Amino acid sequence: MNAPFEFENAIGNDASLPEQVAERISQLIIDQRLTYQDKLPNEFELAAQLHVGRGTVREAIKLLAARNVVVIKRGKGTFVARHPGEVDDPLGFAYYPDQMRLAMDLLEVRTRLEPWVAASAARRATPENLDRVREASLLVEEDIFSGRDHLKRDTEFHISIAQCTQNLVVPKLIPIIIYSVELFGSLNGNVLLSETVADHRAITAAICAHDPKAAEKAMEEHMEQNRRELEAILKELGRS
Amino acid sequence: MNAPFEFENAIGNDASLPEQVAERISQLIIDQRLTYQDKLPNEFELAAQLHVGRGTVREAIKLLAARNVVVIKRGKGTFVARHPGEVDDPLGFAYYPDQMRLAMDLLEVRTRLEPWVAASAARRATPENLDRVREASLLVEEDIFSGRDHLKRDTEFHISIAQCTQNLVVPKLIPIIIYSVELFGSLNGNVLLSETVADHRAITAAICAHDPKAAEKAMEEHMEQNRRELEAILKELGRS
Repeated sequence: MNAPFEFENAIGNDASLPEQVAERISQLIIDQRLTYQDKLPNEFELAAQLHVGRGTVREAIKLLAARNVVVIKRGKGTFVARHPGEVDDPLGFAYYPDQMRLAMDLLEVRTRLEPWVAASAARRATPENLDRVREASLLVEEDIFSGRDHLKRDTEFHISIAQCTQNLVVPKLIPIIIYSVELFGSLNGNVLLSETVADHRAITAAICAHDPKAAEKAMEEHMEQNRRELEAILKELGRS
Repeated sequence: MNAPFEFENAIGNDASLPEQVAERISQLIIDQRLTYQDKLPNEFELAAQLHVGRGTVREAIKLLAARNVVVIKRGKGTFVARHPGEVDDPLGFAYYPDQMRLAMDLLEVRTRLEPWVAASAARRATPENLDRVREASLLVEEDIFSGRDHLKRDTEFHISIAQCTQNLVVPKLIPIIIYSVELFGSLNGNVLLSETVADHRAITAAICAHDPKAAEKAMEEHMEQNRRELEAILKELGRS
């Protein structure tokens, strides 16, 4: 057992005081079921409520803002973020030293997940979901046929399919595991764009026809195309 | 086209200056391939190099620390974190209003992924991987037989299996999709502990025997047990 004064100086083990206060404010958001655009109590109120100084509250709020839990609006106050706690690149892939191996490993996971997602999408999509998939597919084609980079919209196309599953988690996982597309997009010289268009059309058609088997198969072929593309890129990099 | 002075005031659209500087420091870490425990240039050097004030550098470093990219050691300097950019609960699941639906949806994803992970583990595990799986399995049993909460070690058991796949991404995804276990652990009154022990033993044995089919089947049964457990909990909550 620790002496009481040790507790005072090291509550929650090695977390700093602002870190502990951030944790408590986060719990307050959860307990009070605050959501997007809800306003947090101001600095004075939080300081009084949590029995800490205003400076500590300010640092804690900064921590939560850095993690996209809250948004600080100057002169207006602090508000809950649209997607609290969601961050870009949440697994820190950008910092991996071996980006090629990462790309291959991501593709392995995609190959396992995305055909299943497509099949599930074909089963559960609402008419509104299908409108969105069709729209997203057209936007990718628009980019491709205009010679623009299509990778952002490509990811959105895959997310629109994930949304058809009605599963809360799948649309959040897709952008994480699609990271590889963004990574290698700049390298591949768009050699396989016509395949991308054909694949996307086949996937869209199968999902819109509520045909799970066809959707699964079309997505498997798309993953296979991605694999060929990635291997071509790795070969190219190996030569240079 | 914007006038030049507008560019100066709003580089990178609406990102704040500390945010932009954080992005540049992050890029510096990536470009110079800095890894765990590598030291960043000090505040003066970064300020000079990035043509910004020291206060801005300090705020930027705080942002990166909040996101677990760097660790600030008082009096020693700023260092790259062990797992840069990886955060707890990276998809913000704690803030989801409907935690029950989240738990069901997570289980759906686990049921798709984990049997495949177990099969792949059985195929690719090294002797060292297998030692770790056995050890992790025993540690869960130790918790269970001592009446302690076993959920942290349960997650570690599943991660040890994920590591057998030699895939960089899978061990990172597992703790995210296992979130439900932590969530409902406190509720279930440990009714199915003997099933957990039996399931884990079967999974461990199959992976150690390098038997992918048996490993897949054992994990499928474990997921099925989790589903029954979750349904019992939801029923219990519905009653209360």
